[in-house]
Amino acid sequence: MARFMDVHDGFVGVTAGQLEAAHGRDFENERAEGVHVEHAWLDPRQGKVFCLSTGPSTDAVKRVHRQSGHPTDEVYELSLDVE
Amino acid sequence: MARFMDVHDGFVGVTAGQLEAAHGRDFENERAEGVHVEHAWLDPRQGKVFCLSTGPSTDAVKRVHRQSGHPTDEVYELSLDVE
Repeated sequence: MARFMDVHDGFVGVTAGQLEAAHGRDFENERAEGVHVEHAWLDPRQGKVFCLSTGPSTDAVKRVHRQSGHPTDEVYELSLDVE
Repeated sequence: MARFMDVHDGFVGVTAGQLEAAHGRDFENERAEGVHVEHAWLDPRQGKVFCLSTGPSTDAVKRVHRQSGHPTDEVYELSLDVE
């Protein structure tokens, strides 16, 4: 299982409730793809969302987000990390 | 204290040791700025680094990374998140 970060633009002014609703749609769609979205962070001023997930492939992560109505082509496979 | 994600490009082919060294330089420089870098993730194929931190301001985060030798203008203040 690999780890991924995907990036979304255009979320300017999005509220906590809207972010939770978007994340909830991912949660509904992810099981079929073997994906799990662990955390999502939003900068509502610049409209940027970062979404950390685990899953089998970049394409599986993209399909979950497309099915949830917030597609992105910007998905990164995070093979290294430090704390 | 706010939370930030900063994004770096051009880290294609960077190794675990190099990522740890870069993160170590942040750790040396962050105290003076009241910044703490919690986690950094790397996609060495696309050369992308994501760095999650807490601190007093975007400018403080930028200064830490500049002092560590990996400056970036791409810093996002993450006022909302979901798990």
